[in-house]
Amino acid sequence: MEFLKVDSVDAARQKLLDSVKAGLVSKESVTPNQALGRVAAEDVFAPENIPAFRRSTVDGYAVLSADTAAAGESIPVFLTLAGRVEMGQPANLTLVGGQCAEVFTGGMLPDGANAVVMVEYTEEFGGQGLAISQSVAHGENVVLPGEDMKAGDLLLRKGKRILPQDIGALAAAGVNAVSVYAPTRATILSTGDELVAPEQTPTPGQVRNINTYALSALAKKHGLELVSTSVLPDDQNALEQAVRTAMQNSDIVIVSGGSSKGKKDMTRLVFDRLAVPGVYTHGIAIKPGKPTILGYDDASRTLLVGLPGHPVSAMMVFELLIGWLLREVMGAQPPPAIPARITCNVASAPGKLTCWPCRLSRTGSKYTAEPVFGKSGMITTLTQADGYFIAPPDAEGLREGGDVMVHLF
Amino acid sequence: MEFLKVDSVDAARQKLLDSVKAGLVSKESVTPNQALGRVAAEDVFAPENIPAFRRSTVDGYAVLSADTAAAGESIPVFLTLAGRVEMGQPANLTLVGGQCAEVFTGGMLPDGANAVVMVEYTEEFGGQGLAISQSVAHGENVVLPGEDMKAGDLLLRKGKRILPQDIGALAAAGVNAVSVYAPTRATILSTGDELVAPEQTPTPGQVRNINTYALSALAKKHGLELVSTSVLPDDQNALEQAVRTAMQNSDIVIVSGGSSKGKKDMTRLVFDRLAVPGVYTHGIAIKPGKPTILGYDDASRTLLVGLPGHPVSAMMVFELLIGWLLREVMGAQPPPAIPARITCNVASAPGKLTCWPCRLSRTGSKYTAEPVFGKSGMITTLTQADGYFIAPPDAEGLREGGDVMVHLF
Repeated sequence: MEFLKVDSVDAARQKLLDSVKAGLVSKESVTPNQALGRVAAEDVFAPENIPAFRRSTVDGYAVLSADTAAAGESIPVFLTLAGRVEMGQPANLTLVGGQCAEVFTGGMLPDGANAVVMVEYTEEFGGQGLAISQSVAHGENVVLPGEDMKAGDLLLRKGKRILPQDIGALAAAGVNAVSVYAPTRATILSTGDELVAPEQTPTPGQVRNINTYALSALAKKHGLELVSTSVLPDDQNALEQAVRTAMQNSDIVIVSGGSSKGKKDMTRLVFDRLAVPGVYTHGIAIKPGKPTILGYDDASRTLLVGLPGHPVSAMMVFELLIGWLLREVMGAQPPPAIPARITCNVASAPGKLTCWPCRLSRTGSKYTAEPVFGKSGMITTLTQADGYFIAPPDAEGLREGGDVMVHLF
Repeated sequence: MEFLKVDSVDAARQKLLDSVKAGLVSKESVTPNQALGRVAAEDVFAPENIPAFRRSTVDGYAVLSADTAAAGESIPVFLTLAGRVEMGQPANLTLVGGQCAEVFTGGMLPDGANAVVMVEYTEEFGGQGLAISQSVAHGENVVLPGEDMKAGDLLLRKGKRILPQDIGALAAAGVNAVSVYAPTRATILSTGDELVAPEQTPTPGQVRNINTYALSALAKKHGLELVSTSVLPDDQNALEQAVRTAMQNSDIVIVSGGSSKGKKDMTRLVFDRLAVPGVYTHGIAIKPGKPTILGYDDASRTLLVGLPGHPVSAMMVFELLIGWLLREVMGAQPPPAIPARITCNVASAPGKLTCWPCRLSRTGSKYTAEPVFGKSGMITTLTQADGYFIAPPDAEGLREGGDVMVHLF
């Protein structure tokens, strides 16, 4: 039976990647101001040297370093004050031996000077004289042209998630547009006759719709753009109509629900009716989340994802597959996982990769991971957790005190 | 001299916290959909039991567990199929011994039933009969009312940064409004005669303005709302006018620049003219970032921050003081730091806490932190780093192979 053909997580990931090779992400140009948290879609190289001129890193006096060689606290060296470099102005003077010029942090060094003495080690006297009580080496307290970045240096790496300092570096270099990945457009369809809106009071047998809200938030967290969200009854025609519409304006169509027997095949049937090549993964060896299906439509370039109805399963599969895929196609790195020791033995499901939600605690530089136990589908197993770790499918389980890597939510 | 009175980071933090006790943050009510990434301003308790009724966690058949005790793969137990529970409907039947009812994942258990047999271990025959090949224990594959959350359980803790699963839990519980901290309003003023806009070509002595862009992005990253940003010449009247205006509509006024001798006191003078009690920290024992000043105005409830002109110093001080303060007043936790071993000796500045930007690398479950070296103020020391670690002020420095905690950017 087709639904028993279950892929490993690695196999499912490879199929995902292969299926979207025609393109899941596109690029757009934004200003650095708009780029925070976005992923760079192209390498950016520095167009010029930064700084463009020799700058002082301190407030003080530009000197010829050789002039200061004999300076000490008890026997200062005396120099002639030849002028001052104003901020934002070129240094319109040239120093010769025995001369110095006042310069401020970030100011331009005069020709002839090759170091700066900090103001703390100087004393002006008589308007034209300066006593210096500390020697400086050649180049001391000076940043050379191109020392921060040289023209042609890699300023921003493709695949990097853009941080405030990157925006600062782009500003410094005068790069006023940056190519980033455009948000991937997603539609989220939640199916189930039992679902009512959160503001409604469920009658016996009904439950409030969790998945639309939890998955929408997860999609936003991963930088997706939500085209629309809908709640549908367990009706194949309604689902088919909704998926067809979504395929026209979305890069990813996510259907959650359909875990019950009659419905199990409904999402697959709809995907296979509408898409070519259609469904290629009929289940994944992962706990929770086995009844996940994956497919693709070449014509509309739409990724089709059928997630379990259980919110916990749906969210874990989203993290492990969709989140992974989005990073992979952009060449982005996941946030570093936290090494921790588990506080108790945990079981592995035979043949399945098991995701364990856990709480992190830190003592000194060591973390412990306390698994959060709970029955299938309980949302509080996720709200009480800081992250999750993975027990591999071939393990007997993991022992108390064993090392795991915790991926933060 | 007043500017030599330097506070430790701990002392500066305590003064910050004391100064804003009149209030830096306010609360607002948002829908769960709007709450992603916001910090909960009040505890939220579950208003009712979730689930509200006994739910099956699998597709299968509701049974009286005692009826299945003898079931095995070779000798099944035979039960009478009394009906089916439709999704979203109450279970309108009561099972007695020898009976079972079809139920789907998330469906309601009929009265009388106390467990569910997974469909994989059953076979229907003759329309009214069911063969069961595996026994189930009392309560197996069933979630009890209140087992996910009980009425009165803490659903969302004050100070928690709201994750997708929290939004799911709020939806599940029918909580349609949540109290979160409103964004703190900030104005960022960058001063310097040498500054030109990133789209301009600097002449000798001029540099492009980095701080406005880097600090704005950092402010956004920390959830601040930017009221305005301005670039000002080194002119006390202009600064005073800008700070006065900003104090009327901002919770925090940040002035960056003013590191050169004449300007060093300008920001302090302006803060002290406009604010009561005014400046309380005239420098911080931190590298980079010593020339930071902090003040407060009781009447307008405005925090006044004078940051160094060096972008790297300004950003590190923002992270360590403003970022810290915002979390502290909301009761929010910082993201977990990463334990790592440093790849080389690093120096400590005498009497100062030193922030070392570093690159993280992982081998197995171990991270190493490679310090990024560079002269004062070089923005690339931050763009090449994944985070930073702190060398304490009383240390001789840190040795190669020593343990540090890396705070991610």
